[in-house]
Amino acid sequence: MGNCKEFDPTGISNYYSNKVRDVISGLKKKPAIVAFFANPDEGKIRIAESIKRACLKTGISFELSQVSKYDLEEEVLKANEDEAITGIIINYPVFGNRQDEYLKNVILPEKDVEGLCHRTRYNIFHNIRTTSNGHKPILPCTPLAIMKTLKHLGAYDKRLEKGNRLYGKAIVVINRSERVGRPLAALLANDGACVHSVDISDIQAMSRGPGLKFPKFKLISARMSFEECLNNADIIISGVPSKSYKIHQKLIKEGAICINFSSDENFDASIKLRASVFVKSLGELERVMLMRNSLRSAIQQSNFPPLTHSK
Amino acid sequence: MGNCKEFDPTGISNYYSNKVRDVISGLKKKPAIVAFFANPDEGKIRIAESIKRACLKTGISFELSQVSKYDLEEEVLKANEDEAITGIIINYPVFGNRQDEYLKNVILPEKDVEGLCHRTRYNIFHNIRTTSNGHKPILPCTPLAIMKTLKHLGAYDKRLEKGNRLYGKAIVVINRSERVGRPLAALLANDGACVHSVDISDIQAMSRGPGLKFPKFKLISARMSFEECLNNADIIISGVPSKSYKIHQKLIKEGAICINFSSDENFDASIKLRASVFVKSLGELERVMLMRNSLRSAIQQSNFPPLTHSK
Repeated sequence: MGNCKEFDPTGISNYYSNKVRDVISGLKKKPAIVAFFANPDEGKIRIAESIKRACLKTGISFELSQVSKYDLEEEVLKANEDEAITGIIINYPVFGNRQDEYLKNVILPEKDVEGLCHRTRYNIFHNIRTTSNGHKPILPCTPLAIMKTLKHLGAYDKRLEKGNRLYGKAIVVINRSERVGRPLAALLANDGACVHSVDISDIQAMSRGPGLKFPKFKLISARMSFEECLNNADIIISGVPSKSYKIHQKLIKEGAICINFSSDENFDASIKLRASVFVKSLGELERVMLMRNSLRSAIQQSNFPPLTHSK
Repeated sequence: MGNCKEFDPTGISNYYSNKVRDVISGLKKKPAIVAFFANPDEGKIRIAESIKRACLKTGISFELSQVSKYDLEEEVLKANEDEAITGIIINYPVFGNRQDEYLKNVILPEKDVEGLCHRTRYNIFHNIRTTSNGHKPILPCTPLAIMKTLKHLGAYDKRLEKGNRLYGKAIVVINRSERVGRPLAALLANDGACVHSVDISDIQAMSRGPGLKFPKFKLISARMSFEECLNNADIIISGVPSKSYKIHQKLIKEGAICINFSSDENFDASIKLRASVFVKSLGELERVMLMRNSLRSAIQQSNFPPLTHSK
């Protein structure tokens, strides 16, 4: 059906998990993660246990800690202070409301291996690639997995300078969650792409302007309809949690790269008639990026001690 | 009806607005607020214009700035850098989702006169009364208005040390929003009270323990039912946005202080048969507290320059 290549990122996953294991084997102090569960959910605990096994295989210690939601903040603060712990994960929802946003910012940014805190997001949005204490921001796992996939597929133009390598690319990201879609769109736009970020309420255009004249993306109201955005896009990335949401081949441009990061399939099978590459699922790549983040944050903490919590 | 006194906090409002005006008249550099509106709503703009008039009367300059939601973050960052501006307000909702939580943390904490950012809330929850750069945290206006009312009513015991003056008081706060109910409950608990914080999902108990043994409140799951909490409370503070929500006299303890901060009346008229004091509405006191915060943050900025945004 068409000329489309279906791409499975397992090779990238293997490459990075081998690399992470090799680097860790040479480290004196290994990365150590604690993952807090305040609302035990059997399905999520099973997933966490499988992440734990994968971490142990690469040399990352991983403790699953069940705590009451009333004790969670105190436990996170202890883990912030504990030099033996280099990465902290909270399994959400805890309170299931805005109190959870507060908790995301209680984890020290240097130990926030999922990249969910305000400081990390601020740095992403503002194209700040080295922080004031010499750290590189830890990027959230799913956006990072998608960027690694795009690099592997050649979408980043190596002839251009680092940081500008998506110049000229039109990208649509369908999903604008604070966890994945919005940071992803910002990262791609800051790398030079013209991104349309789509959610149920509106379409936002993010771009560094003609000739990359801005040092970071500007946000503007989109001048194109959703159909025009799709029809113009070199790359379409979709993460809509709906079984019935399907992008049909007739909406997309010939040769587009299509990446699905929803657990539902957002692209109709017909897509292969027109797309050049189709990535049905990121597979293990997100959790491998978690391991890479855990390694990077452990190394950064040993080079530059984390700041204490700003008061 | 009973022995209950209905208390109108207008006197407190007048006291503080006079005090704020007097202090400002002696200042070289006056407080200057900018309030951003991204989604103009006639009702809210009318309210803001009335706040503006009140500010101007006390010597605070107040600019109402209408901007597109796409430009809002950039405009806030400019106001952060602008030494002429000492206070920044954003009118919510802007995007109406978690992106608004991000915006709350883009305002410099030192210019956040509404006290909504993470750092301020972290300091409130952790009973940190002077920050690392010598500032006193700016408390959110409604909790502050309620504390001033309680002080005026004599609920704070002046024989005890500052910071412990609610020791022995049982308080129920019905509302656990991140804006009002949760910081209010924490402030009261950190002042020594045993607080039950109630929302639709559960009841949380916050207390510094017997003899105030902890330096800040501990959060524990409540051991009492809602009826038991109410029946035991010296002070009941309610902010439920519902016309049908009414607390009846038979639920409360004789001599209780009842304070309503909802725009709906949360206490049944029968309350006066048992309460000692009933505060139907905070009236102007919340906006007077905004002016007091504006003054305090302007003075603090002139004594201690704000930190630049942590990266």
